[in-house]
Amino acid sequence: MPTPDSPPPATTDAEQTLLWTQIKAEARRDADAEPALASYLYSTILSHSSLERSLAFHLGNKLCSSTLLSTLLYDLFLDTFSNDVELRAATVADLRAAKLRDPACVSFSHCLLNYKGFLAIQAHRVAHKLWTQSRKPLALALQSRISDVFAVDIHPAATIGKGVLFDHATGVVVGETAVIGNNVSILHHVTLGGTGKAGGDRHPKIGDGVLIGAGATILGNVMIGEGAKIGAGSVVLINVPPRTTAVGNPARLMGGKDHPSQHKDVPGESMDHTSFISQWSDYII
Amino acid sequence: MPTPDSPPPATTDAEQTLLWTQIKAEARRDADAEPALASYLYSTILSHSSLERSLAFHLGNKLCSSTLLSTLLYDLFLDTFSNDVELRAATVADLRAAKLRDPACVSFSHCLLNYKGFLAIQAHRVAHKLWTQSRKPLALALQSRISDVFAVDIHPAATIGKGVLFDHATGVVVGETAVIGNNVSILHHVTLGGTGKAGGDRHPKIGDGVLIGAGATILGNVMIGEGAKIGAGSVVLINVPPRTTAVGNPARLMGGKDHPSQHKDVPGESMDHTSFISQWSDYII
Amino acid sequence: MPTPDSPPPATTDAEQTLLWTQIKAEARRDADAEPALASYLYSTILSHSSLERSLAFHLGNKLCSSTLLSTLLYDLFLDTFSNDVELRAATVADLRAAKLRDPACVSFSHCLLNYKGFLAIQAHRVAHKLWTQSRKPLALALQSRISDVFAVDIHPAATIGKGVLFDHATGVVVGETAVIGNNVSILHHVTLGGTGKAGGDRHPKIGDGVLIGAGATILGNVMIGEGAKIGAGSVVLINVPPRTTAVGNPARLMGGKDHPSQHKDVPGESMDHTSFISQWSDYII
Amino acid sequence: MPTPDSPPPATTDAEQTLLWTQIKAEARRDADAEPALASYLYSTILSHSSLERSLAFHLGNKLCSSTLLSTLLYDLFLDTFSNDVELRAATVADLRAAKLRDPACVSFSHCLLNYKGFLAIQAHRVAHKLWTQSRKPLALALQSRISDVFAVDIHPAATIGKGVLFDHATGVVVGETAVIGNNVSILHHVTLGGTGKAGGDRHPKIGDGVLIGAGATILGNVMIGEGAKIGAGSVVLINVPPRTTAVGNPARLMGGKDHPSQHKDVPGESMDHTSFISQWSDYII
Amino acid sequence: MPTPDSPPPATTDAEQTLLWTQIKAEARRDADAEPALASYLYSTILSHSSLERSLAFHLGNKLCSSTLLSTLLYDLFLDTFSNDVELRAATVADLRAAKLRDPACVSFSHCLLNYKGFLAIQAHRVAHKLWTQSRKPLALALQSRISDVFAVDIHPAATIGKGVLFDHATGVVVGETAVIGNNVSILHHVTLGGTGKAGGDRHPKIGDGVLIGAGATILGNVMIGEGAKIGAGSVVLINVPPRTTAVGNPARLMGGKDHPSQHKDVPGESMDHTSFISQWSDYII
Amino acid sequence: MPTPDSPPPATTDAEQTLLWTQIKAEARRDADAEPALASYLYSTILSHSSLERSLAFHLGNKLCSSTLLSTLLYDLFLDTFSNDVELRAATVADLRAAKLRDPACVSFSHCLLNYKGFLAIQAHRVAHKLWTQSRKPLALALQSRISDVFAVDIHPAATIGKGVLFDHATGVVVGETAVIGNNVSILHHVTLGGTGKAGGDRHPKIGDGVLIGAGATILGNVMIGEGAKIGAGSVVLINVPPRTTAVGNPARLMGGKDHPSQHKDVPGESMDHTSFISQWSDYII
Repeated sequence: MPTPDSPPPATTDAEQTLLWTQIKAEARRDADAEPALASYLYSTILSHSSLERSLAFHLGNKLCSSTLLSTLLYDLFLDTFSNDVELRAATVADLRAAKLRDPACVSFSHCLLNYKGFLAIQAHRVAHKLWTQSRKPLALALQSRISDVFAVDIHPAATIGKGVLFDHATGVVVGETAVIGNNVSILHHVTLGGTGKAGGDRHPKIGDGVLIGAGATILGNVMIGEGAKIGAGSVVLINVPPRTTAVGNPARLMGGKDHPSQHKDVPGESMDHTSFISQWSDYII
Repeated sequence: MPTPDSPPPATTDAEQTLLWTQIKAEARRDADAEPALASYLYSTILSHSSLERSLAFHLGNKLCSSTLLSTLLYDLFLDTFSNDVELRAATVADLRAAKLRDPACVSFSHCLLNYKGFLAIQAHRVAHKLWTQSRKPLALALQSRISDVFAVDIHPAATIGKGVLFDHATGVVVGETAVIGNNVSILHHVTLGGTGKAGGDRHPKIGDGVLIGAGATILGNVMIGEGAKIGAGSVVLINVPPRTTAVGNPARLMGGKDHPSQHKDVPGESMDHTSFISQWSDYII
Repeated sequence: MPTPDSPPPATTDAEQTLLWTQIKAEARRDADAEPALASYLYSTILSHSSLERSLAFHLGNKLCSSTLLSTLLYDLFLDTFSNDVELRAATVADLRAAKLRDPACVSFSHCLLNYKGFLAIQAHRVAHKLWTQSRKPLALALQSRISDVFAVDIHPAATIGKGVLFDHATGVVVGETAVIGNNVSILHHVTLGGTGKAGGDRHPKIGDGVLIGAGATILGNVMIGEGAKIGAGSVVLINVPPRTTAVGNPARLMGGKDHPSQHKDVPGESMDHTSFISQWSDYII
Repeated sequence: MPTPDSPPPATTDAEQTLLWTQIKAEARRDADAEPALASYLYSTILSHSSLERSLAFHLGNKLCSSTLLSTLLYDLFLDTFSNDVELRAATVADLRAAKLRDPACVSFSHCLLNYKGFLAIQAHRVAHKLWTQSRKPLALALQSRISDVFAVDIHPAATIGKGVLFDHATGVVVGETAVIGNNVSILHHVTLGGTGKAGGDRHPKIGDGVLIGAGATILGNVMIGEGAKIGAGSVVLINVPPRTTAVGNPARLMGGKDHPSQHKDVPGESMDHTSFISQWSDYII
Repeated sequence: MPTPDSPPPATTDAEQTLLWTQIKAEARRDADAEPALASYLYSTILSHSSLERSLAFHLGNKLCSSTLLSTLLYDLFLDTFSNDVELRAATVADLRAAKLRDPACVSFSHCLLNYKGFLAIQAHRVAHKLWTQSRKPLALALQSRISDVFAVDIHPAATIGKGVLFDHATGVVVGETAVIGNNVSILHHVTLGGTGKAGGDRHPKIGDGVLIGAGATILGNVMIGEGAKIGAGSVVLINVPPRTTAVGNPARLMGGKDHPSQHKDVPGESMDHTSFISQWSDYII
Repeated sequence: MPTPDSPPPATTDAEQTLLWTQIKAEARRDADAEPALASYLYSTILSHSSLERSLAFHLGNKLCSSTLLSTLLYDLFLDTFSNDVELRAATVADLRAAKLRDPACVSFSHCLLNYKGFLAIQAHRVAHKLWTQSRKPLALALQSRISDVFAVDIHPAATIGKGVLFDHATGVVVGETAVIGNNVSILHHVTLGGTGKAGGDRHPKIGDGVLIGAGATILGNVMIGEGAKIGAGSVVLINVPPRTTAVGNPARLMGGKDHPSQHKDVPGESMDHTSFISQWSDYII
């Protein structure tokens, strides 16, 4: 069972500073090369003195509306990030995860500015903190803005670990009692949904290192074991053992339910979406 | 066959007033508890004298753009809601549906402000009315704004009953000749799509009380019988009898096509997404 | 193998002028009939002297943000469209494709203003051009804005042919090395995704005239042969031969993998989504 | 003593309708001739069904800010104008005054859209009504917005008659207990100021038909008699008799204080700024 | 000679806290009485934890533009006010001055929200601090925004004391080497201007307790002695002795240049604009 | 009599290019020194390829409103500046005039970005061109925006020469038939006004090299001879001979009307506001 709330391996402020230095160097290089983008890069990155200021500014401007002003959101984000080293460590881990796992991620600054999955998760972390402080209406208002702007709908009560990648991210839905472990990778259109109108613990628990393919739907208080892999488009309603692969609609375990195949890699990190083809697909051309 | 255009059980103005009183009480409680949200709550709810004014204001500000001004949309929404008691009754029924069926819906005001499915449906009702008045270009412009802002794409000609819940809502697509009955619940990424390039009646008809799970795709002029349930991720191309359950891609009827199992509850209201697991899934761990 | 970069059949400026004349006539008719929409129609269409100016204006206003100003984007779009006759020809072909294939498309101006799929593709064409000019950070910033605003995520390196229709479009994801041929029709929630964390050529190649149904997921460097049809909700991990139909999760070839059925029409143009029902579905009621 | 609150000569709704018809005709002519302005003309005039709707829309958009939304102001203005025929009559009289007296006023629509003096007065009339209804904080917020946007600072308690023209208007200041009669014309930079820190009735009373030249400063509870003329740049601290002319700093009465010259025309209507030259100026070249 | 940069009588944080408590009480009273204004009052005052946060928020939103974002300005203002107790003390003194001297100032919150003179001075204090830190381009950009938004043009190098009131404020111009002492009151359209194109010390020095009437123009490096009074519309080009009154164009000293009359009150605080009438004006009616 | 419409001494494109190079160098230096301003400097100056693009962008963003979009204005300004070398030459001359004559003008970029007088004049030049092309409604809409945003009200028919400086600029009013020659300097609150309600040629003609002090009011079709100087606060109703000085209210000629003093310098360039003190003021202390 994932325990994403337990202390992560120490991400020191030094590490954050190092990353921030690199992000600024990337942005400066891009600003020099592309004057049309320089204003954007200065306002979002180069004018700020720290990663949390840059992120608070960017999220505040992205998520604001005519009735929720950017200055209010900026203040809220900056205050929360500044006072919670865990949040800042998670941001750093998420940035590293995107850069490491997504070959289309050309730089940290690219992820910071442009990845709606990354931005949605960071904003969610603030909403989650508000939720745990019983500031629920504000947390829910944030959830709504994240869903409007990024098309990513994460209930503020959901718990998300570190080093998590929401790749492409459009359409991801994460329910109230869902838990996502560390080093998980989730593609777009993935649902971690509930069982119905009854309250209580009713959403999936995603173990560390899990990979969930595009469009997969996981419903109910089921456990996706650590290092498991869920194929794209799968519909999963029951537990999936650690380091096994579930595919299809309804999902079947690769290798059969009695002796399912087990892989050695950590799919959430290795990001191998398709190596089970030969075992699974019914035609070879 | 659903007849969502027939007169609903009378939702009196008294009922709307009662609900509005409750919404204001909720908003006032939240504003008192959370100063950072008070401005938002006053501008969207507490400064207004009626539910339709609040809704028109909120939708006008959400759906406006630099070329479709908020004042114009506010005017349009307010005028339409004020002059159509049926629309107002449907709004009340939709709010009650969300509160009753979604355990994550903590208050009516939460739904009114934050549920993009609810907001998309209300804006669609206005677009639909414009469509029936032959104001098609304006109706289509509204559809486009709803699709941009909420990622919910409902053709203005589509007919939607009362007490309808679009839960999470991102990615829902409803085609031109689709009909959705009363008390239907539809999850995100659901498609009620057409058959191709030919015009005419070509989209699904969804009976009263139907539940359609996340990511289900229903194509063509097929009838989903009242009280039927469509499993998450299903692909449905032919009729589904009343009170039966279709699951899978391609969809099969639970219990078999000849003698499909029939349930007694109304899934659109009971919201039971997953009780068919044991009959369906191919592995138990 | 599609070759979308090869010269298209000459779309002359005369053809564009003709279309633009028609678009203005449509907009003028709508403005006369609907004063509430006239301001919108004048600012987006009727005040402009050419299709590319109208499109650059509309995209600039749709995709701008508080940190990427509309004037900057307008300038960028106008400059790019003005200097590339191929882009303008593709715009014309896309407009014609939408009008011809989508029965809900009532006019060219309707598509130009309101179809997020059309708009996302045109903005992508500019991003793609920037990418080929090594202006990658700007191209990636555009991709991000397109994904935020339209919920359509197309990597700027992806190649898209002419006469392409993204119908409804919400949730479409197209990866870095994907290639989409001419006269292709793609429904919403379709993924042309990669295989994992390794770089290189890793995304699908979609032949001319292909039709991909709603929610289909195609992963890896696979070839979807010209005129093939991919059923809604299908998960495709290996090649699909020309003019065959793949359906299901995992996808099977209609008629069997050894002697798959072949159709004569061009699905991307005929848009027949559902005629394979009788062969595929497991129940008749 | 002016009595601007007494009933004006009946401006019937018919008169307003006639004027509105002319304004729409002007706007339509301009929209046809100038496509670049058509969007502006449709949104501000041609899409509206009445003068008060047009004016409420225009003022709402001009005076809004990020913390005082256009929809709120539109609502406030529309509600106030709709429920007070006197306000609407005053608007009509002010439009006619501008058109009649200012040779640079080429059309009623020009005044309605572009004259900050006209717009400031109309917004003030709403603020004044709020003030008389003891809604003082809202009235003062409006005063502030009018001063920011138009550089015209009118205390909401000040009383302004009908047929009043603030020409150019920048810098006009009107104090709390000031009263301006009917058919008054006031140029820019004019001050109707108070005497100091004591409260009470402490600002000028301007009689019917008065003309006050640019930059004139009138201080204290003094009476400017009906039909009087105050020269540009004058500083007036004591009463000015009816139909006389005061000029200079400090102001002197033309003709001497004992037997001042009296004119027969109504300067506020005849707008003769300079005919006293020969009597006044000390050099002829 | 004023020495506005010397330490003021200690305005303790306690005093600021007391004033802030009163401002919040006023705003709460107004929000309760006027729902239409409540959103504005919550966003500008009631959601903030300190006067400097409220002021930074309000100025950031007032002075921002599409190229100078509100978040950036908010950050700048908040940082500056938070780190400079002198600035905060000056803000408190200015609020008290407005409330005490202007009978139209009904509450501290009214001044904080609506007085462009007060807001312009507070923004200038930040610009002045930037200037002294050699951050001149940013200081000049602020000056420009203050001039655009409030029509008050104060060179960032100018020095302004505490307890200063710019009443109405529109059109005030204060040059680069001007110095304004403590407890000064300046009406609108007042110019503290220079002598020409030569640089160096070339603007007026305004002593403590001076009152400058509306439209007065003071040019050159002249000294306006403490407690002096400058009549409305005066043009002053040479020194004015302490506690004397200069009026007219060109200005004369009341009582004659050899033995000018001296008053005992402090005009900047007593705000007596007009008591010199009998001595000055040339006609009695 | 000034002839500002006659061809100016050729300002070659080379000169403009040189100036633009210097402006970019200034902006780059400031952006390097002040990260908080870099975004502003890049968006307004450094991202543009020419002075006219920078100016069109800046004016478009400054003058836009919710009903007159920045993209439309940008287009209009860019098109006009690009096609009229005279306008571009005038812009260059105005920049040089500000830099040369105003000791507070620290750089060309400072003037380009921050001087509302400079910006108002450039926008007026476009409005004037529209006026001469009989695009009067658009020209008048521009005038209105310039008056709202900069508090500078210049009728689009007025003719303004080159090398003109409006210093501080707030409150300047220039009437329909006014003509301003080359190398004129005009301070804030200056009025070049008309005589009344009659149309025709009714506003002042300002000769080359004239200097008009702050708050001066010049009314009627009078000629201010070349090189004349009008003192601050003067009220001028009749002609002023070349190279003489008029001061006071009413204005007198320095030296007497029969043999007025004549100066040798060009006041509009030398900017000597106050050297006539000893001759004029009535007291020496």
